[in-house]
Amino acid sequence: MRAAIFRNGEIVVDTLPEPRPGTGQVLVKTLACGICGSDLHARKHAHHMVELTRHLPGRKPMDLTRDVVFGHEFCCEILDYGPATSRKLKAGTRVCSLPALLTSDGPQGIGYSNDNIGGYAERMLLSEALLLEVPNGLAAEHAALKANVRGDEVPLVIGCGPVGLAVIAALKLKGLLPIVAADYSPARRALAEKLGADIVVDPARKEPYATWAEHAAMSPEQKAARPPLQAWRPALKPALIFECVGIPGLLQQVFEGAPRDARIVVVGVCMETDRSEPTLGIMKELNVQYVLGYTPDEFAFSLRLIAEGQVDAASLVTATVGIDGVATAFADLANPERHTKIIVEPWR
Amino acid sequence: MRAAIFRNGEIVVDTLPEPRPGTGQVLVKTLACGICGSDLHARKHAHHMVELTRHLPGRKPMDLTRDVVFGHEFCCEILDYGPATSRKLKAGTRVCSLPALLTSDGPQGIGYSNDNIGGYAERMLLSEALLLEVPNGLAAEHAALKANVRGDEVPLVIGCGPVGLAVIAALKLKGLLPIVAADYSPARRALAEKLGADIVVDPARKEPYATWAEHAAMSPEQKAARPPLQAWRPALKPALIFECVGIPGLLQQVFEGAPRDARIVVVGVCMETDRSEPTLGIMKELNVQYVLGYTPDEFAFSLRLIAEGQVDAASLVTATVGIDGVATAFADLANPERHTKIIVEPWR
Repeated sequence: MRAAIFRNGEIVVDTLPEPRPGTGQVLVKTLACGICGSDLHARKHAHHMVELTRHLPGRKPMDLTRDVVFGHEFCCEILDYGPATSRKLKAGTRVCSLPALLTSDGPQGIGYSNDNIGGYAERMLLSEALLLEVPNGLAAEHAALKANVRGDEVPLVIGCGPVGLAVIAALKLKGLLPIVAADYSPARRALAEKLGADIVVDPARKEPYATWAEHAAMSPEQKAARPPLQAWRPALKPALIFECVGIPGLLQQVFEGAPRDARIVVVGVCMETDRSEPTLGIMKELNVQYVLGYTPDEFAFSLRLIAEGQVDAASLVTATVGIDGVATAFADLANPERHTKIIVEPWR
Repeated sequence: MRAAIFRNGEIVVDTLPEPRPGTGQVLVKTLACGICGSDLHARKHAHHMVELTRHLPGRKPMDLTRDVVFGHEFCCEILDYGPATSRKLKAGTRVCSLPALLTSDGPQGIGYSNDNIGGYAERMLLSEALLLEVPNGLAAEHAALKANVRGDEVPLVIGCGPVGLAVIAALKLKGLLPIVAADYSPARRALAEKLGADIVVDPARKEPYATWAEHAAMSPEQKAARPPLQAWRPALKPALIFECVGIPGLLQQVFEGAPRDARIVVVGVCMETDRSEPTLGIMKELNVQYVLGYTPDEFAFSLRLIAEGQVDAASLVTATVGIDGVATAFADLANPERHTKIIVEPWR
C-alpha cells in the first residue's frame, strides 16, 4: 500500500507492506486524516522529541533511522477483523479511535511510532476495543475541557490556529462570555469570530491583555464583596488564558501580560527549550496547566458535538490532499492566511 | 536610629532619621527579624528584580540609587501611635504584621521599598489595622496552605531550607503521610525529620523521584478502581511536589522526574531567567502553581500554630545577630550545614 512516510527528516511517498490485523485488531481503510500542528513540530524537531520521550516512562521513542507514518486524527472504514474480535460493527462502518493500539505491553501510540502506522497511509490497524462509530471524519481537539472551567472566568485565547479555534468553540459551548481571542492573521481572526469569539484582537495594533482587562471588569457587587486587603487590586474577574501558539518566548509573554492569580492553560506545543521568569509567576501567583489533549470521554463527546452540528469543524478545513500532497501540505500550513486545517485522503 | 542598609549592592550599617508615625500608623521597636532567602536573592539580583517589578501593575519598583532597608519577617513592640488610631493595644505589646503599609494609594510593601523601612532597623512603622498581637517572634512561611491539599496525595519536598522545612511542618499538620523530603545537606535532612518528614533522601545517593515512587504505591482497591485505559500506567498515588530550592534548572529537573499528572508547587524563588521543556509539561499534563506566600488568614493561623507549639519554629533558628552582624549573616547563610535561619535583633 502507499503511504506518506517520515524518512530522514522529510516526507516521502513510498509503498509499505500490507498491515495484517493481530489479536483484537481491526484492519481499516483510512478515509481522512487531519494534519496536526504536532506533526509539523515532529518533522522539524524529531530528534529533540525523541530525547524528551526518554523522560516518559513506558513510552517507546521513535527510531529515526527507521520509517514512521504520521497521522493521529483519522476517520476510517472497517475492512477486516483479526483473531479474538467480537465484530459488532460490520465492514464498511465508519469509525474513529483514540490514536492508540492496545498491546500486551499496554497502549502504544499511533502516529509517532515505528511499529504502528498512522493515518497518512491507505490502510492502518486499530484496536477493536477503542473503536467509536462516527458520522464525521474530523477528530476534534478538545483541550479546553481539561481546564476545569468554573464559569466565572473571562477567557483569553492567544493564537487562533486549529487548536485555538477548537478551544474557542469549546468555551462557547461552556457558555463563557465574553471570549477574547488574539491572532495576527485577519483570516484566523475571522474564523475565531465564526466559531464564537466575542472580541478579536490584532496584537500588532493592541495589547491583548489590555483588551481582555476592558472586558473583564467585576460587577459592582463582586467589587464590594472583596476582602479589604484585596480592595486596592484592579477589580477584574478571574483570567483563564489559553496559550495556543507553542513557540519559545510565548509563555514568558503570557507571564508578563497576565493579571494576578491568572490560570494559564498551555495547549500550544512548544517543542523547543523555553525560557521564562519564575519570579513573575511567583509574584502574580500564576497557575500553569499543561494539557496534552483529551480523555476517551472527551474524545467521544467532541465527536458527538461535531456530528450534531454544535461545533462547526468543517469551517476549519481549507484543503484536502492525497498521499502525494502531504509534503507540500506541510509546507503550505506555514501560511496562516491560506490554511487552517488540511485533510489527507489517502484513497485519492 | 541605626540600620543595616542595602546600599550600592552591599549591606552597610549607618544611621537613618527617626521614623514618625503618620495617619493610622504605629511606631514600633523591632525585636527580631528573620533573614529570608528572598533577601539574599534581592541583594544578588536587585536589578533583575526591579526590572521584573515593571510587569506588576500597582507595584513601585525600588530605586537602587537610594537606600533600602530589607526585613519583612519581623516581631515588634509598640512604642507610639500616629493620628487617627484607635490604640487598642497598649505600648509594650508585642505585635506582628503582614509586611505591608496601608496608604491612600493602596498597600505598599515593607522590606523592598525606598519609603518603608524593614526589620533590619531599630524602629519601623506599621499600619494599626494590620497589627496582630503575638506571643512569638518568628513569622512562619506557610505556602503549603496554598496548594489546596486534598489529602490523598503523597508529597515530595525538594530542598529543606527554611521554606522547605516550613512546608514539611505544614504538610504534617495537614496529616499527609508519608512525607518524602530531599536535600544534599545532612544537617537539613535531620531538621526535615525533626519537623515531620517520614522519609529523607540524599539526592547524591538516590533519585528522590524513585524514592517517592516506592512510597506512593496505590492500594489494591485504588488500583482496581482505575478506568481501563489508565490500567497500564504506573499505579501511583497523586504526586504533590514542592520545589523549595529556587535555582535555575530546578524546575526542569522536576519536569523530568515528576510522574504524569503531578501537581508542582513552586515555592523556591528563582530570581534568574529559567529554562524548561514545555513538551515534557504537556506530555505529562503537569500543573505548576507558583506561590508567593500567605494570605492574611494563613499568616494569623501560622502564628497561632507556632504559639501553641504545633510547629517547632525555634528549631530552625541557628543564630541571632545585631545590626552589625547582618552583612556577615548574609554570607554565612550560604552554608547549609551551619545555618538555617538567622534572626536579626536590632536592639542588641
